[in-house]
Amino acid sequence: MPYYIGDVIKDYKKLVIRTPEDFQKNGINVKIKTRVEDIDSQKGLLRLSDASSLSFDILVMATGADAVRLDIPGADLNGVFVLRNLTDALRLKSYLNEKACGQAVIIGGGYIGMEMCEAMRNLGIQTTVIDVLPRPAIRWDAEFAQLILEELGKNNVIFHPETKPLAIAKGKKSRLVLKTDKGDLDADVILMGVGTRRNATLAKAAGLEMGESGAIKVDFRQRTSHEGIYAVGDCCEVFHKVAGRWSYFPLGDVANKQGRVAGQNIGGHPVEFPGVVGAQSFKVFNLEVGDTGLTEEEALAYGFQPASAMIWGLPIGRPMAKGEKLGVKLIADKTKGRLLGGQCIGEKGAIQRIVGLSVALWSGLAIEEVGYLDLPYAPPFGGAWDAIHVAAQELMKKM
Amino acid sequence: MPYYIGDVIKDYKKLVIRTPEDFQKNGINVKIKTRVEDIDSQKGLLRLSDASSLSFDILVMATGADAVRLDIPGADLNGVFVLRNLTDALRLKSYLNEKACGQAVIIGGGYIGMEMCEAMRNLGIQTTVIDVLPRPAIRWDAEFAQLILEELGKNNVIFHPETKPLAIAKGKKSRLVLKTDKGDLDADVILMGVGTRRNATLAKAAGLEMGESGAIKVDFRQRTSHEGIYAVGDCCEVFHKVAGRWSYFPLGDVANKQGRVAGQNIGGHPVEFPGVVGAQSFKVFNLEVGDTGLTEEEALAYGFQPASAMIWGLPIGRPMAKGEKLGVKLIADKTKGRLLGGQCIGEKGAIQRIVGLSVALWSGLAIEEVGYLDLPYAPPFGGAWDAIHVAAQELMKKM
Repeated sequence: MPYYIGDVIKDYKKLVIRTPEDFQKNGINVKIKTRVEDIDSQKGLLRLSDASSLSFDILVMATGADAVRLDIPGADLNGVFVLRNLTDALRLKSYLNEKACGQAVIIGGGYIGMEMCEAMRNLGIQTTVIDVLPRPAIRWDAEFAQLILEELGKNNVIFHPETKPLAIAKGKKSRLVLKTDKGDLDADVILMGVGTRRNATLAKAAGLEMGESGAIKVDFRQRTSHEGIYAVGDCCEVFHKVAGRWSYFPLGDVANKQGRVAGQNIGGHPVEFPGVVGAQSFKVFNLEVGDTGLTEEEALAYGFQPASAMIWGLPIGRPMAKGEKLGVKLIADKTKGRLLGGQCIGEKGAIQRIVGLSVALWSGLAIEEVGYLDLPYAPPFGGAWDAIHVAAQELMKKM
Repeated sequence: MPYYIGDVIKDYKKLVIRTPEDFQKNGINVKIKTRVEDIDSQKGLLRLSDASSLSFDILVMATGADAVRLDIPGADLNGVFVLRNLTDALRLKSYLNEKACGQAVIIGGGYIGMEMCEAMRNLGIQTTVIDVLPRPAIRWDAEFAQLILEELGKNNVIFHPETKPLAIAKGKKSRLVLKTDKGDLDADVILMGVGTRRNATLAKAAGLEMGESGAIKVDFRQRTSHEGIYAVGDCCEVFHKVAGRWSYFPLGDVANKQGRVAGQNIGGHPVEFPGVVGAQSFKVFNLEVGDTGLTEEEALAYGFQPASAMIWGLPIGRPMAKGEKLGVKLIADKTKGRLLGGQCIGEKGAIQRIVGLSVALWSGLAIEEVGYLDLPYAPPFGGAWDAIHVAAQELMKKM
């Protein structure tokens, strides 16, 4: 009889609520507010926090990852948040609803930081983002980050680069003060978006093999090193098709696919999960920002000989354009000509291109082919030579 | 010394004008208002309409295609237009600027019809589209065409299906009257968008081999059957990678690519044009409409065993959605599992998916892989399971 151990969200009225009873109707037992203390993988036994135990033939580890809460004084003060799961989001939302927040400081200029500064501005809150790094969205080319900075500026978000948070204290003018190496920042709410930590403690204690990345090692069917134990989602590794190696790539869509693959295999329908190419995106105000495959630094680290080209093109046909810009950067391997990665940024059409480039990476296409790909040309959606083609032709000259 | 024979547009002030003198600066001689009467491919000689002749070592045929003007009485009356090239567009534009046009009738519900009815409505002209077929954009699934009809309706465009144009006459209430088998339609301007006819007469007379489609036969380097004679664009065939055969696919982006390939080969840089997968799209008012690969009918005709699935999904993540619809239809071969085609329609995100599916077709991916493709997931751009994945999983059940 299948068991599900974890939280079942039932404290927010707008959500479709699944109660333990709902699961039970489908023959699934749910234990909430219960921790698994340890796993005896030999005996197939879980020891639970309510002192009971549970035997298993098949076990699926879906322990995910935790948001990192910086280890600085005051990090646990009321008004300081991380954002990882639904409960985190509901907590933050309640706080923003209940307290009048005039100013927000977001620590970290990654995905969470970029997406949340838009959310904060939509609530009319003055918003400042700080990062220890020199620019937001560090994965992207510096020239593209400039566009992100402009977009933040247009929307009255202040960005402080190379700024290290030191401590949080109660404030006078505002509820809190964030002390940094560049001075103090007033804040009524502080959000830490500084990354995640894979939650593999339980698996490690049970003796499951870990990958090089420190996440649970799995095979293409999501099986761990122990027979009958599967792992899926942000606690385990995934095969990176472009890098040709197992890596850690904790994104929601990947977790979904891994769950399905594990389920199919457990259900007796063997299926393999081909892996990822590293496709990722976010939206900040009116800007689409997408990336796929490897960056030049990653490509070098994995033993490729990367060359790259960057162009500023148009997301639509020239006669229809009214000043739109679309940045496309492509990376390919000099020795074999294979496409290794791509980045796109613009108010329109950036993700459309990243979708195409992701499938090209999936298929291992050469940059030469990317330059001639048949795309659904019509002026509202691109030029007769798409920005992808132009960038690929540009890169060909460097090969 | 290279020669270019054809029209050079110089009668419209907003355009960047290239005069014969501009070409000459780059060492290219241009003859305008001159016809090639015939080609002596043995001697390498063109006989021109100005009674002179021109010898060649290399000849590029780029004779394109002509818009079909229906052979009905009154088809050449003032106010009746076809739309193929820039001159056609300028002529139509002048007419619309000079005469007060209250009503337009467009014959043909294909790309030209759909795009032009939007243009006409933007000018405030009452617009009616007629077609001999039962629905507009006949290539698309009937369920998708329903969405197009709704979009036309919302924008006050009247569509008359299964209506045959019989004759055009001068009108009384309006400038013209289109007589059809379903009655008369008043019109101040009539546009025929009823397809094109490849312009291969000259090539045929010169003894160049024609393909099965009736267009000029070429190889992957755009070489015709005669040494030194190349053909590019709408007068010649192109290799269809999905069908695995040479076919006729007269679109602007394909012509651009063929021109480049011919140029590179002529310039001594051998390169092959891999072909097309059949990617195509249009926009009608707020609707994106895209198609790629083969339809079920084509797949059957080419010896495949097609299965298909259609879903209505979302272009963005469910929590952000406000009633948007995205239709995705996928077609795959039952015996080999290979993706054969796809269609998408919706106010947002349809072309994004057609781009991905086009690259999947280019690479010969199996439908199983399409179901797990790594796409740049973020809620503003799709669900964790993208509509493409959902459609592919749906189709997998039928395989």
